[in-house]
Amino acid sequence: MKSDAAGVATVRMMELGRTECLALLAGVPMGRVGFTHQALPVIRPVNHLVDGDTIIIRTHGVSALVHSASVNEIMVYEADQLDTVARTGWSVMVTGPASAVTSPAEAVRCRKLLIPWIDRDLDQIIRIRAELVTGYRLDHGR
Amino acid sequence: MKSDAAGVATVRMMELGRTECLALLAGVPMGRVGFTHQALPVIRPVNHLVDGDTIIIRTHGVSALVHSASVNEIMVYEADQLDTVARTGWSVMVTGPASAVTSPAEAVRCRKLLIPWIDRDLDQIIRIRAELVTGYRLDHGR
Repeated sequence: MKSDAAGVATVRMMELGRTECLALLAGVPMGRVGFTHQALPVIRPVNHLVDGDTIIIRTHGVSALVHSASVNEIMVYEADQLDTVARTGWSVMVTGPASAVTSPAEAVRCRKLLIPWIDRDLDQIIRIRAELVTGYRLDHGR
Repeated sequence: MKSDAAGVATVRMMELGRTECLALLAGVPMGRVGFTHQALPVIRPVNHLVDGDTIIIRTHGVSALVHSASVNEIMVYEADQLDTVARTGWSVMVTGPASAVTSPAEAVRCRKLLIPWIDRDLDQIIRIRAELVTGYRLDHGR
């Protein structure tokens, strides 16, 4: 671990490529989706599935998320594993247009793979196309 | 733990009040700020301080966050502690206008209390006014 003149460890953000970002995202169960509801920004923690070049999440039928997806709003999805004490970890952010999954077969497949952590009818499947993918890993310069 | 007819534990979202939300937020070191950059939604993990009715974060001088704060953009700040396997935890979301902390004394105080996890000049202090505060806790119906 490199140190600066004062002996404090040097921690920098090392940019990650698209493939590594999507692999990291696929390896964690949850993240946060960002979208707009009634002209205000919203962040909600949800679980996800990386499905090719898209991120799949599920929600209930009358949610703000469904409304935003119905108009193909640009959403952002972020996941991270950061240890603020050890100063290690990574963060990945995916941005792109959202849409509702309307194919019944596709929806059934996604519902099997993605089990929500609350007991509410989260029958709507939303897909966010990963048009922009950015991320970083904290690097101790070893 | 309550169970439904199939013997599966029932987990619901129990809404939390403002005071409890801010107390939960104050008890964790980090969260995610949501804002807009070049017309796109952005989510960034940062550490924070709850300071009265505001959330304080720090960033570097030329960041997109500083630009958004300079025009008093409405930002959202979310923190959570969710265990997706045990299906326990909480999430809190704060929404309100952002501004830059311009008082040098105030900025010095915030910089002492809020140590970033990367070695970059994060000298700019941003304050988000907690106008809307919502949150929930997962409830197993015990």
